[in-house]
Amino acid sequence: MDYPGKKSLKLHAKFKGKMEIKIKVPLWTMADLSLAYTPGVAEVCKKIAANGALAKKYTIKNNTVAIITDGSAVLGLGNIGPLAALPVMEGKAILHKRFANIDAFPICLDTQDTEEIIRTVKNIAPVFAAIHLEDIAAPRCFEIERRLRAELDIPVLHDDQHCTAVVVLAGLINALKVSRLNKAQANVVINGAGGAGIAIGRLLLAYGFKNLVLLDSQGSIYRGRKGLSAEKLKLAKLTNRQKISGDLPACLKNADIFIGVSKGGLLKAEMVKQMNKNPVIFALSNPIPEIMPAEAKKAGARIIATGRGDFPNQINNVLVFPGLFRGALDNNVREITEAMLLKAANNLSALVKFPTVHKILPDLFDTSVAQAVAGAVKN
Amino acid sequence: MDYPGKKSLKLHAKFKGKMEIKIKVPLWTMADLSLAYTPGVAEVCKKIAANGALAKKYTIKNNTVAIITDGSAVLGLGNIGPLAALPVMEGKAILHKRFANIDAFPICLDTQDTEEIIRTVKNIAPVFAAIHLEDIAAPRCFEIERRLRAELDIPVLHDDQHCTAVVVLAGLINALKVSRLNKAQANVVINGAGGAGIAIGRLLLAYGFKNLVLLDSQGSIYRGRKGLSAEKLKLAKLTNRQKISGDLPACLKNADIFIGVSKGGLLKAEMVKQMNKNPVIFALSNPIPEIMPAEAKKAGARIIATGRGDFPNQINNVLVFPGLFRGALDNNVREITEAMLLKAANNLSALVKFPTVHKILPDLFDTSVAQAVAGAVKN
Repeated sequence: MDYPGKKSLKLHAKFKGKMEIKIKVPLWTMADLSLAYTPGVAEVCKKIAANGALAKKYTIKNNTVAIITDGSAVLGLGNIGPLAALPVMEGKAILHKRFANIDAFPICLDTQDTEEIIRTVKNIAPVFAAIHLEDIAAPRCFEIERRLRAELDIPVLHDDQHCTAVVVLAGLINALKVSRLNKAQANVVINGAGGAGIAIGRLLLAYGFKNLVLLDSQGSIYRGRKGLSAEKLKLAKLTNRQKISGDLPACLKNADIFIGVSKGGLLKAEMVKQMNKNPVIFALSNPIPEIMPAEAKKAGARIIATGRGDFPNQINNVLVFPGLFRGALDNNVREITEAMLLKAANNLSALVKFPTVHKILPDLFDTSVAQAVAGAVKN
Repeated sequence: MDYPGKKSLKLHAKFKGKMEIKIKVPLWTMADLSLAYTPGVAEVCKKIAANGALAKKYTIKNNTVAIITDGSAVLGLGNIGPLAALPVMEGKAILHKRFANIDAFPICLDTQDTEEIIRTVKNIAPVFAAIHLEDIAAPRCFEIERRLRAELDIPVLHDDQHCTAVVVLAGLINALKVSRLNKAQANVVINGAGGAGIAIGRLLLAYGFKNLVLLDSQGSIYRGRKGLSAEKLKLAKLTNRQKISGDLPACLKNADIFIGVSKGGLLKAEMVKQMNKNPVIFALSNPIPEIMPAEAKKAGARIIATGRGDFPNQINNVLVFPGLFRGALDNNVREITEAMLLKAANNLSALVKFPTVHKILPDLFDTSVAQAVAGAVKN
């Protein structure tokens, strides 16, 4: 067992849960009780019964987000189920609190059926101001998000898709500056076409990238290829116009940018050498990146980013989700749109005044981050 | 609008939610983050994936209770729906924290369909150590509790039924002492046969009361009466052996004890006068009791209890639910049984060393209460 793993077990055993409930109101006398609870509370209930919008004025709905998972795609661990996913969801919840003062509560679902998940989330929605979907496997995650967005009156956002896409784009915006690359000309290869890969592809297109190739486990994705899901087919129509067919090495020839949301160790030095000069490598598989930074550098890469905090240029969606939800809550936003995501990426990248090869994103603990991202979410 | 109502609205508007999330672990450096979150947390996930029981060692499941309602029977307000029920559920949650250090979270369901409620609760169960059902209308509440008890591996308890029954019995135990009544001989009339009335009836029988008559809106319940639900039929077989048929005045003749879980103002002075000498009156309708204490006293009642805090002898299930759940959590109890409920009532009544007509139950803020009740819940 590695060192942080061992220490993490100790921490978790000591605290038995990383969060707890804190009472905000006075609750020490019969008079206190008569206001926070019966009989006084009946008046609050009556007001909300007459006008549901008042729930945001009088209750936790004002600041409460549900973190929903089915435990099917947790970290690099995969389908470990709802109970084993809980430590990660608690982690997300305390990050919401730490960075954006959001009260988030983990809901780990004992089902991996799409319809059942949708129905359950709709049933428990009244208490919440927004729904944060987390670690739900593709392609199920697309349908769940789409349907919940359509059927609920609160914002719904799949973190692994959109928050990852925003932080990747923010990093790329600065990587383009440092590398003097042009978004309309740069050749981008995205390896991995799960929730994150698809969402990154879409957001990059929306930002103005023109030359994108996505790969899944069967190789490059192009119009007419067999075995494409609905989501992949949609992207096939918008990417890989030259219909490059083949594996990762074939696709990387003359590429400027590699974005890996796939598997540790997949990217070999020889492949990096086949890319254009001074390529940008985002090796985001966690905890083992597609290529280790030292190896990538030796093979000629100039800007290297990973998902890890022990290397420069950490791509971590902690930079994004607290701010996006903060903005949605503060501005009563019904839906977090693609335009808002683009703006969030721009705001985030702009926090680094002078980007360098070693500094394309702000620090996770930079307290201006959440505010800057939240500023992108306005009606 | 009455005074506490007005003040309560102000309090709720000021705090915008009576509870919030509090972070328990250090979260200030990259090192902290690597333990509370990735990469360290992966080790915790793996341990739980291998052995689900470890969730109680490492996560909030250890101390977290879901307060579930469909908003169908809230206070005296009735079916006001999930959103309007939230202020009450938040109230319950902070009382759990205040009196038993339990982290309870309100789940207000956007459905009032029995099967849908059962399915939803089962789907969200993984995070929780126990399920607290609240303000769900009869007869739906019986089926929901029965099924969830059978199908979940954590304790499930409907507060309005069992916690109310425990506090009523605890009060009665002391009322019997003060009145020198005998449980086997006392004639008890329970007016109201919803969740609370049925549960009180059952627990009183289990305690050893022999002469019970329940009434619903159609009058007294007896074997063979028309229009009885399954739950009422069960009780009809165990109560009202003389098959008294008729309305409340008819049933109260020669009764020693009246327990009202019905409607404000229902019990008239003339009816109290028809009861046996020095009757015991539990007028629990809230906020307006079945009879006001002064009127009941004038009509001859000796011991009078209500649901209100501004009269002596408040019957409030706050005395019961935090302790019952505390005991269940601490002792890893799979099911809270009737024997435990009886013990809880005994423990609770025993806290009043010298019961009097004005003091049959401990104060709500007596800090020994939760401990005493928790002591009843052991395997």
